[in-house]
Amino acid sequence: MTEQLPYGVFSTGALHRHIGVAIGDQVLDLTSVVDEAALRSTTLNAFLALGRARWAEVRAEITELVADPANRQRIRPYLHPLSEVQMHLPFDVADYVDFYASEQHATNLGRMFRPGEPPLPPNWKHLPIGYHGRAGTVVPSGTAIVRPTGQRKAPDESSPTDGPTRRLDIEVELAFVVGTPSDLGTCIRTADFADHVFGVVLLNDWSARDLQSWEYVPLGPFLGKSFATSISQWVVPLAALEAARLPIGAQDPEPLDYLHDTENWGLDIDFEVQLNGQVVSRPRYRGMYWSPAQMLAHLTANGARLRTGDLFASGTVSGPGRDEVGSLIELTDAGRAPITLADGSTRAFLEDGDVVTIAATAPSPAGGRFGLGEVTGTILPAVPRRR
Amino acid sequence: MTEQLPYGVFSTGALHRHIGVAIGDQVLDLTSVVDEAALRSTTLNAFLALGRARWAEVRAEITELVADPANRQRIRPYLHPLSEVQMHLPFDVADYVDFYASEQHATNLGRMFRPGEPPLPPNWKHLPIGYHGRAGTVVPSGTAIVRPTGQRKAPDESSPTDGPTRRLDIEVELAFVVGTPSDLGTCIRTADFADHVFGVVLLNDWSARDLQSWEYVPLGPFLGKSFATSISQWVVPLAALEAARLPIGAQDPEPLDYLHDTENWGLDIDFEVQLNGQVVSRPRYRGMYWSPAQMLAHLTANGARLRTGDLFASGTVSGPGRDEVGSLIELTDAGRAPITLADGSTRAFLEDGDVVTIAATAPSPAGGRFGLGEVTGTILPAVPRRR
Repeated sequence: MTEQLPYGVFSTGALHRHIGVAIGDQVLDLTSVVDEAALRSTTLNAFLALGRARWAEVRAEITELVADPANRQRIRPYLHPLSEVQMHLPFDVADYVDFYASEQHATNLGRMFRPGEPPLPPNWKHLPIGYHGRAGTVVPSGTAIVRPTGQRKAPDESSPTDGPTRRLDIEVELAFVVGTPSDLGTCIRTADFADHVFGVVLLNDWSARDLQSWEYVPLGPFLGKSFATSISQWVVPLAALEAARLPIGAQDPEPLDYLHDTENWGLDIDFEVQLNGQVVSRPRYRGMYWSPAQMLAHLTANGARLRTGDLFASGTVSGPGRDEVGSLIELTDAGRAPITLADGSTRAFLEDGDVVTIAATAPSPAGGRFGLGEVTGTILPAVPRRR
Repeated sequence: MTEQLPYGVFSTGALHRHIGVAIGDQVLDLTSVVDEAALRSTTLNAFLALGRARWAEVRAEITELVADPANRQRIRPYLHPLSEVQMHLPFDVADYVDFYASEQHATNLGRMFRPGEPPLPPNWKHLPIGYHGRAGTVVPSGTAIVRPTGQRKAPDESSPTDGPTRRLDIEVELAFVVGTPSDLGTCIRTADFADHVFGVVLLNDWSARDLQSWEYVPLGPFLGKSFATSISQWVVPLAALEAARLPIGAQDPEPLDYLHDTENWGLDIDFEVQLNGQVVSRPRYRGMYWSPAQMLAHLTANGARLRTGDLFASGTVSGPGRDEVGSLIELTDAGRAPITLADGSTRAFLEDGDVVTIAATAPSPAGGRFGLGEVTGTILPAVPRRR
């Protein structure tokens, strides 16, 4: 991670939370080397609020600082090996919205959750469907995930029971971090996407499928998702993704005017999902039906304001191939076709002790691809309820 | 409003935001008369975080201060007429959750949104259904509500259009303000409700029914609600509602253990809904199926943590009578039976310029009933989209 200069919040034995950028296997402490008060904070929020022009200036300054060998002596005291720092949630999350922008994922899930009905609901190709998730349980990569307990009722059970989820799953997503806020009543045009969105993180939308399928009609997912949502520790600026930009695919029917998008925020980002160290899927972001600029335009179409720290996610990234899907429920055909791991064990859904790591890459302007960090989590056993 | 001593945040020409309690038609500035650093803030959040024991001490101190005539001289400089202060959002909202706890409302809405299906979904009597709303668009009473624009498609239209909502509605709700946070992985027992919840506000969950009905399958309400949610300016402590506590009604089937509730948080709170100064409905909270203690236990049943400033609402309060419902869509039978106002005009849904005011009362320990403040808003015309 050199040229992308992602931002994060780190601490060491001696330093409380400082803002830094990752450079190779080191982190550069920005509090002392860049003259910007907003960077002397324990979260990125104040910096995110500065807006696009200042983001660009600071990035240019850091780029120069790092590129010029004459500065090596000057910055040396502010470089820390990544292996020796602890990373934290990079920003305080304001509102968290999750979309559902992969046609393949929505089709796969629709078949499983609503058998006998058309898999895509009638609205799906007219608007990017989304809903609000729980901002307070967004956690940084590395946070252990306790298996959630809750109500679940299988179709063949006559009444629900309370217990640890039996269908703990992942969702591989790309998420967008809002910097510049907007006023109540303002709709953000697709063309203004990069004025408001600072950058991206990788996101794992942990899902308890049995809780979700029992609870979600009619008001949507709630406890099946709200126990934890993991994000990567580094926010990669949009400015680092110029070489990844692509046109989005054809949309039929033509979206309404407010969703019209020519900004090429389709993104050439390739994910890799590892379960206990073994690659089990390689979803590609480029096939997503709705662009993030369309998501943002829709999110604000009713005048809902944006706040610095708002986070919105793409929804599960799934392609047409079995090895391109972003969730276990798709990978294992709702658990009917478990996968076999290298140690000979099988998985329909996650077991206690399992480690899931999602990584991603994007094209570098210099050729080749660079990493966007990773988001990882280990499953811990459920905790019995207190009486 | 004397004995309830509700908390709010006010400013005057001379004072920036201060925390005060309402006493009759005055507000007592607490920053100088109570020795508590958390009260010298521009929001209630630091005070809410202090926890139940300290809430009780401060309430006792204020009660004594106000009750003893010997203190009159001392507090006089810190009393301001309510008519001369400006009120603000009393606390920063962390996560906002909306429940759906009135059987009558859920039945009425189910009939209209899913005709031909059983009006209550199969899960409704097993768990208090809820979903996350947008915390960033919770606004204080008095904030003007701009008619939202968005996608809507009537059943007889072949494709959606983008435009101002044609079915702007209200939802009369009681909402609960979380003070004491909890750790990730902790389920809050119903018996611990009052350790975490500081008090209540009145809430109007403005709803664009046409946007909502088009968007809500399968992930729940989103833009039909997220444009604005109004709350009253004063937070009434639970401590002021002791005389309002009632057992909840019979629940059949018996809820699962984690929802078992003997805490009597059914509440004798009566609402009054005025449209342009005319009372159009009188919903009563006492008929709600799920108690707020059950809502909180469910919200955290999967280990989701609470943060200070979390807000959760009851869902629309509707009783069996036509004059007891908490929304226009129920009051006017989905617009088919408009109501007639005193000026001879009719309303199926809200028109530009309409003023909606929701007030409520609860029993006073001394006999009679006291007011819980009000939540009001005026509808402004839609703003054309920027191109």
